[in-house]
Amino acid sequence: MSEAERAQNLRPSRPDLETIRAAHLRIAPHIHRTPVLTSASLDAMAGARLYFKCENLQKTGSFKIRGATNAIFSLNEGEASQGVVTHSSGNHAAAVALAARWRGIRAWIVMPTNAPAAKRRAVEAYGGQITFCEPNLRARELTATEIIRQTGAVLVHPFDDDRIIAGQATAAVEFLEEVPDLDFLLAPVSGGGLLSGTAIAAKKRRPTIRVIGCEPKNADDAFRSFAAGRVLPLDHPNTIADGLRASLCEKTFAILREHVEQIVLVTEEEIVAAMRYVWERMKLVIEPSSAVAVAPVLTGKLGVAGKKVGILLSGGNVDLAALPFG
Amino acid sequence: MSEAERAQNLRPSRPDLETIRAAHLRIAPHIHRTPVLTSASLDAMAGARLYFKCENLQKTGSFKIRGATNAIFSLNEGEASQGVVTHSSGNHAAAVALAARWRGIRAWIVMPTNAPAAKRRAVEAYGGQITFCEPNLRARELTATEIIRQTGAVLVHPFDDDRIIAGQATAAVEFLEEVPDLDFLLAPVSGGGLLSGTAIAAKKRRPTIRVIGCEPKNADDAFRSFAAGRVLPLDHPNTIADGLRASLCEKTFAILREHVEQIVLVTEEEIVAAMRYVWERMKLVIEPSSAVAVAPVLTGKLGVAGKKVGILLSGGNVDLAALPFG
Repeated sequence: MSEAERAQNLRPSRPDLETIRAAHLRIAPHIHRTPVLTSASLDAMAGARLYFKCENLQKTGSFKIRGATNAIFSLNEGEASQGVVTHSSGNHAAAVALAARWRGIRAWIVMPTNAPAAKRRAVEAYGGQITFCEPNLRARELTATEIIRQTGAVLVHPFDDDRIIAGQATAAVEFLEEVPDLDFLLAPVSGGGLLSGTAIAAKKRRPTIRVIGCEPKNADDAFRSFAAGRVLPLDHPNTIADGLRASLCEKTFAILREHVEQIVLVTEEEIVAAMRYVWERMKLVIEPSSAVAVAPVLTGKLGVAGKKVGILLSGGNVDLAALPFG
Repeated sequence: MSEAERAQNLRPSRPDLETIRAAHLRIAPHIHRTPVLTSASLDAMAGARLYFKCENLQKTGSFKIRGATNAIFSLNEGEASQGVVTHSSGNHAAAVALAARWRGIRAWIVMPTNAPAAKRRAVEAYGGQITFCEPNLRARELTATEIIRQTGAVLVHPFDDDRIIAGQATAAVEFLEEVPDLDFLLAPVSGGGLLSGTAIAAKKRRPTIRVIGCEPKNADDAFRSFAAGRVLPLDHPNTIADGLRASLCEKTFAILREHVEQIVLVTEEEIVAAMRYVWERMKLVIEPSSAVAVAPVLTGKLGVAGKKVGILLSGGNVDLAALPFG
């Protein structure tokens, strides 16, 4: 074995373009091909040409159905017959529940006690069986492990899984098919499943594109991990962006280090302001996690003047009875 | 002149397919071709296959930019040089202001004092000059007439105008290009500009389609006019659907009587419930006036079981600080 081969073997596995294409073929019959929308008033505000890939209009209201469907339809019959289990603050949970229903298998969902009511109701509506746990990663993982011990269900991790990453990458594939000459591509980062898939798909297709991770200042593990050169998880991040409270894993961190240009941080106030602009001007219901990828261009924190900027609107699941608008 | 020709001459003028096609060519460079979206959960609720033409995603946040652009770009240079004036509770006002800016001419806008703040701000942002008046038709018309006397501006009426009707009709043209085999087409009715244009375009293209007007029970002038066989205007309708407070005119009434199957009434509670479903499940910000055309299929008031139903989501301009969700 050569040194290069040895180095290759030490790196965590990762999806390539072929895997991503196969994922796209696998999930296409089930998901929406979401529209890419534009807004003259947000363009004027940003001083750039913005393109919004509307995964808030995706089935289950977020991109998560892409990865979950790819993972669950990749299982062989024996695996599938045991059912699946996952832990998630909400959108991945709903996605696993619906994809399992499509496949005709059972889904156990571990959710933190502080998950939004709307997201809990969605899991229930799709037939997922919920177990609540404390809102931290350790409690989630322990609870899921116990369910696996009892049921033999297969874990569908929200991001530490090549099949999930390949599935999430398909949004960027569609995005660049529609707007091939993007200069920037912005996506929110939490565990890194969406961002790592996005980065692989986008850089392979268009090597000059700059992929930017967008993160709440109040949940800045990716930013700090980038600076430190190693994974620095956060245990109790407190941000309105309830979809972005997880931390990177080794697999996603390795991909981000290679393909992502920079991590931009935004404050809670900037998240709410960006969310409000998108609701008011674009007439799109987006959740705070989506607004995290809009804020950097509206605040001018990211220099994009005159450029073509793609923004992944990751989801639209909010509790209408508890909106942050004054 | 034959009797048939005489009868023809007595009927109010109306746009035909040629006029509508010309309008579409005239406005296409300026407007969005809005997407048609679907929702599995609303389908399940309605027991039908629903298609939503998203004019809430249109420029200015409503279909009104179609008619306003057609009318303003139809003016000759001499007319245009005098500027335009209109009266409107909001969406037509913003549309006239923006279309006038595109044409490079002045726009005077008469708005009722109870127009939503968001709609007032939009008119100002597009450079329209606002004059406020009492919230009734007579006050609006008198104020506009006085502005015409002082400035020589050309009136761009919100619905009593063939160029406006032809412009609004282009949404139905696009809708049927995308989904040619609709069984029903639902649109809200106020002054009848959208509904009459929709009805002409849809029935010419697909004679078997059933075009349904949807109206708040609290502003039921079209329903009562249909029953009486003559125009019965309402002076002070009080409904959350702020875009539907105007009454039919002779021109739009004549078209509706010929081409519209029925007028369905919905209550204020049904409007808010339908609005909430569309926000929650479809992640679309729609205004109450749009929800008026959704409510009949969600409540089961209109029998559409198993049918293909097109719904025109007319607009998405709401005040986020004053939402009707508990």
